[in-house]
Amino acid sequence: MLVFLNGEFVERSQAKVSVDDRGFLFGDGVYEVTRVRGGRLFEGARHDRRLARNLAELELPLPTGTTPAALSEVALKLLHENGLAGGEALAYFQVTRGVAPRAHQFPPTGTPPTVYVSVGAFVPPDALRGRGVACITYPDVRWTRCDMKVVNLLPNVLAKQAAVAQGAYEAFFIRDGLVTEGASTNFFAVLDGEIRTYPKSNFILPGITRDVALELAVAEGIAVREEPVRADELSRATEIFLTSTMNDVMPVVTLNERKVGDGTPGPVTTRLAKIFAAHLEAECGAGAGAPVTANR
Amino acid sequence: MLVFLNGEFVERSQAKVSVDDRGFLFGDGVYEVTRVRGGRLFEGARHDRRLARNLAELELPLPTGTTPAALSEVALKLLHENGLAGGEALAYFQVTRGVAPRAHQFPPTGTPPTVYVSVGAFVPPDALRGRGVACITYPDVRWTRCDMKVVNLLPNVLAKQAAVAQGAYEAFFIRDGLVTEGASTNFFAVLDGEIRTYPKSNFILPGITRDVALELAVAEGIAVREEPVRADELSRATEIFLTSTMNDVMPVVTLNERKVGDGTPGPVTTRLAKIFAAHLEAECGAGAGAPVTANR
Repeated sequence: MLVFLNGEFVERSQAKVSVDDRGFLFGDGVYEVTRVRGGRLFEGARHDRRLARNLAELELPLPTGTTPAALSEVALKLLHENGLAGGEALAYFQVTRGVAPRAHQFPPTGTPPTVYVSVGAFVPPDALRGRGVACITYPDVRWTRCDMKVVNLLPNVLAKQAAVAQGAYEAFFIRDGLVTEGASTNFFAVLDGEIRTYPKSNFILPGITRDVALELAVAEGIAVREEPVRADELSRATEIFLTSTMNDVMPVVTLNERKVGDGTPGPVTTRLAKIFAAHLEAECGAGAGAPVTANR
Repeated sequence: MLVFLNGEFVERSQAKVSVDDRGFLFGDGVYEVTRVRGGRLFEGARHDRRLARNLAELELPLPTGTTPAALSEVALKLLHENGLAGGEALAYFQVTRGVAPRAHQFPPTGTPPTVYVSVGAFVPPDALRGRGVACITYPDVRWTRCDMKVVNLLPNVLAKQAAVAQGAYEAFFIRDGLVTEGASTNFFAVLDGEIRTYPKSNFILPGITRDVALELAVAEGIAVREEPVRADELSRATEIFLTSTMNDVMPVVTLNERKVGDGTPGPVTTRLAKIFAAHLEAECGAGAGAPVTANR
């Protein structure tokens, strides 16, 4: 499998960064994960904009002449070279503040960032979507700039591991009595017939699947309110679902081992999942059913 | 310069980790920085214990047969091999959760961690200590497990950069109206004749220099109270200082461009700095004056 690292296409096993890379030493970098189908990056322009925004927030410039759109082109080339242009795949983009002697402050201006792009075959969790998933809640111990997609992900790692250790699929963070989002997903509940979710702020990632799903819901006349769900409201949610690039719209059928609604995917979630799937198909073509296997 | 990476001694320029290293992708790892003088690790046993504690907290086992003490031995070998055994130096230790396909949850049990140790020549900031340093305050946007020394350091990077951009030396975090600690140091103020500092909790790193300095202060009869300094008390602090492995006891003479006391290192700070220097000398021998230069 070829990946892209600092301007070169190299075998993944040969793709290595210095121990002095600020990604390795500080988690000083940003990333994106983009859904790919049939060689098309789903919502690529939005991912490009988010990457550009996060880079700007961190004052982390791409190399001269490089743009997020150019990195998307790199991903398309990787998909082609790795025989993944025809099916379901994911593209991963990471930019760190480069290699420099260890010191917290930014390295000298002109220090080249580390730019990494990879792709991989992807199996959409369609069977799981039919059944729904079990989730847990977890204290939101994260920092207060969760709006930036950065590689400081240890709290997310710990939350996801807590979920997996309990046989669950995802952990939803609780901050100040409110459900913010999942370890790597956005959180939604249906309460009083409305879809409720945490509003965009510094406490959640502005998920692209989140935004698309909400836009589709609104367009279809489904009631949406961007207002946090309180932890003490969870027990009366008739439906819960999560969204992410890897999950699209995924029903949550148990929370902390308690059934949500009747313990099966609910009507609002199921409807929105279908609308989302149709939108994805309109943008990127029909799903292949089975994923393509990488040819190298 | 030789470094140690995953069981091998290699040239620093050749020391590289996979793009799939969880340090690079998630900041999923811990670290230590230890002061070295004359080939002796200052407070090595405390650093070993803190590393062991952080690894245990994160359920991140060292390779079978490896211990923090064994990594300290590696550092001593590196000091010798790099011609740094005779002067002032720093040792750096980092352990990450190894290399695995990207997924937030822990990789399969048995995935080897990445173990990295390096050393470098160090110039203690003695001249600066005589003059004192300028510092700023900065919002504490960090997570709530600041007690673990992990490589999720982006907020610390941003705070330190804000300081440096303003010509300052360090940024002190303010959380809920209280001064917690610096971006890479602990914070102390002298108020009403007492040294005040944030108590050990999940909101500060339990700094080893912090602990040693407080123990020395108490032994010398200097009044110490581990109670947070409020941001609104800062203007009446007669002295401020910071501690860290790289700073020992460092006077802060301006804060947000306002003089602390008369704008020169105060008597309590100066006394404690001298006591600390004597302790370091008792433990590790006299400072060489000028640092040794690495011979390779």
